Amino acid sequence: MFVLRQCLTLGTKSSIRNFSATTNLVNLTINEDTGVAIMELNKPPVNSLNYELLEAMHRTLVKLENEKCPGMILTSSSRSTFSAGLDLLEMYKPTVDKARRFWSMLQNTWIKLYSTPYPTVAAINGHSPAGGCLLAMSCEHRIMVPDKMIGLNETQLGIVAPQWFQDCMRNIIGERQAEKALIAGRMFTSEEALKIGLVDELATDKEDLMQKAHDFLDEQMGLPPLARSVVKVGFRKDTLSKLINGREADIKMFLDNVFQPKVQESLENYIQMLKKK
Amino acid sequence: MFVLRQCLTLGTKSSIRNFSATTNLVNLTINEDTGVAIMELNKPPVNSLNYELLEAMHRTLVKLENEKCPGMILTSSSRSTFSAGLDLLEMYKPTVDKARRFWSMLQNTWIKLYSTPYPTVAAINGHSPAGGCLLAMSCEHRIMVPDKMIGLNETQLGIVAPQWFQDCMRNIIGERQAEKALIAGRMFTSEEALKIGLVDELATDKEDLMQKAHDFLDEQMGLPPLARSVVKVGFRKDTLSKLINGREADIKMFLDNVFQPKVQESLENYIQMLKKK
Amino acid sequence: MFVLRQCLTLGTKSSIRNFSATTNLVNLTINEDTGVAIMELNKPPVNSLNYELLEAMHRTLVKLENEKCPGMILTSSSRSTFSAGLDLLEMYKPTVDKARRFWSMLQNTWIKLYSTPYPTVAAINGHSPAGGCLLAMSCEHRIMVPDKMIGLNETQLGIVAPQWFQDCMRNIIGERQAEKALIAGRMFTSEEALKIGLVDELATDKEDLMQKAHDFLDEQMGLPPLARSVVKVGFRKDTLSKLINGREADIKMFLDNVFQPKVQESLENYIQMLKKK
Repeated sequence: MFVLRQCLTLGTKSSIRNFSATTNLVNLTINEDTGVAIMELNKPPVNSLNYELLEAMHRTLVKLENEKCPGMILTSSSRSTFSAGLDLLEMYKPTVDKARRFWSMLQNTWIKLYSTPYPTVAAINGHSPAGGCLLAMSCEHRIMVPDKMIGLNETQLGIVAPQWFQDCMRNIIGERQAEKALIAGRMFTSEEALKIGLVDELATDKEDLMQKAHDFLDEQMGLPPLARSVVKVGFRKDTLSKLINGREADIKMFLDNVFQPKVQESLENYIQMLKKK
Repeated sequence: MFVLRQCLTLGTKSSIRNFSATTNLVNLTINEDTGVAIMELNKPPVNSLNYELLEAMHRTLVKLENEKCPGMILTSSSRSTFSAGLDLLEMYKPTVDKARRFWSMLQNTWIKLYSTPYPTVAAINGHSPAGGCLLAMSCEHRIMVPDKMIGLNETQLGIVAPQWFQDCMRNIIGERQAEKALIAGRMFTSEEALKIGLVDELATDKEDLMQKAHDFLDEQMGLPPLARSVVKVGFRKDTLSKLINGREADIKMFLDNVFQPKVQESLENYIQMLKKK
Repeated sequence: MFVLRQCLTLGTKSSIRNFSATTNLVNLTINEDTGVAIMELNKPPVNSLNYELLEAMHRTLVKLENEKCPGMILTSSSRSTFSAGLDLLEMYKPTVDKARRFWSMLQNTWIKLYSTPYPTVAAINGHSPAGGCLLAMSCEHRIMVPDKMIGLNETQLGIVAPQWFQDCMRNIIGERQAEKALIAGRMFTSEEALKIGLVDELATDKEDLMQKAHDFLDEQMGLPPLARSVVKVGFRKDTLSKLINGREADIKMFLDNVFQPKVQESLENYIQMLKKK
């Protein structure tokens, strides 16, 4: 497996603890020399974010924080896709309880990922639309392989990206670029994403991607960790507070949307189309 | 007439409804195939924004919204000027009632233009200072012919651009560029405006300008209209709310300024100078 | 002395009033033809900001405002350093009263510098870390000689830059660049600083630097001063208000930090290291 080989180049075989056996939706690999964690999303074929994957991510993030993780790389086991975003099956004819539980776990996972005290980098080794883009935007640094697409494309699907998705994008690419991108639900190529600052670096291939991700963490891990994390969370506190103080309203907005007959009809058509592929 | 010819290239002659007979300060042309509205300011020589022009614009915007306009191009019938900004004659020795009525209509028109559910594009075919720049900035996209000037130049005239003019600029070019531009009342050439993002595209001539404007609308009109407009208004709601909740204070500030002897003196000198030209 | 020679090239010798005799920590030179003030920090070797230097700066700023100064250049008498930032000796084992008095004067000086009605330009003729960067960022325009470093490097020292330092940077280089720079406490070369907009121009040497600073002021001094200053202070009022309304909380945060045993230990080590140099 690639990630394993990558780690082997950084440490001895015995220095790697692999937790993939316990949580197969998320492969967690920790380099015992550096402490760097690689969190690899592993829900084939496209890492669609269902409750179970989000819960596994959340559990992993809690574990990393408790174990004083010094730095984390978020990536995907897929060759084509970083994450395809929210799993439409979670939204298709759910019970209210199931829909609420799903959205609440999405909030939990994002709050945890967006506010980690340790440095995080998204190694974007494939397409990254909608919720996939949110995950990438929630890390501190984004590196992407060429010829893939990234963006919040909700508008193109006839839905409105939640405010916190929008806020994350605005924080990264600024008011005007975010307005243009979100109104049109625009997907950017890797090269376009670099140009507007949605990603920070391009890599030539996955090996280069992981190397650059480690380089970023090496630099950050050389900094005094407490000051570093206070500054980071300070920058993100307004965006975090808006969601944390408005979780119920945000869930309600999701429920109001998801149970509209027109949305259910769109989802049905979309799911049928995907099945035929 | 140019706009008419332009439309003819997009549809048959019979497919164009022309409302110019009813409101001669604003020529409204609607392409019946695409539904695209061309709103051409037509108050020679420089489309100075007096009460009547603003009222005609406002009436047209209400009409377009009621008739579910799918997209609108804002342009000018002048070869030299998009709009020269507010008509100084409205501010020169007015009655309080007249001044209040004028400023209130400017607010109405801007609120309507800034918040249209349908996509808007400014086809900036000439100079666009002060209030002219505001109109352009209120559209979603700006395309400009070369060798013209655009900017909020109020400071150069010894006055302070209203907060909502400033907010529009900040939303487009960011805090630092807006601070520099507004402190100095700087006018930008088309090329400079492109570079700092005050306009989005340059066109080679008016034909290219109108083509590019139609291209922008074609793209936007392919998007789900409700999601599109919810995102747009979401981005603009803070700037809109600030004015809507502070209309009286904003009118009062205008009245306080306009009746200052020094301002009246400046206006008199400026108007005399323009008459001599 | 260089600044004097510089002024001589702009006016006759008799047209220069030099106040350096009265306040030797700040050399103030006023060109009687143009009225332009050059405020040269003169606390060898590196203009570390102790209470006395800040108080001399504050006194000079009050004097310039009272005397209706039309424009000011902030620079340094050192060949290597614009300002090395806060004087660590002020923070090493101070009494509570001394620490409070120091921080309060830093606030005073910044509030005055950040809100001057007259145009200000930082002629950055040397390194400008931390508090030195704050001074430069508080001017309206920044010009820098090549091959020097500038930035808010507090994180690298294990401390957190105060919120108003951070706000100043965010206002200039935007949310994302400021987040990256502040999390890492990054120092930028002159060339990098130009690229991200932390400085506005580079100069080839000190003569070119002073010439460009005068050119900037010439342009600003041609604008109506009242409108100019209203726009400037309007742009800065949120950042100013946050500190002005939270001065006590800001002082308390400084005191809480400075008296931590770990901070005192770090300071001791750092001061010992500097002494050995």
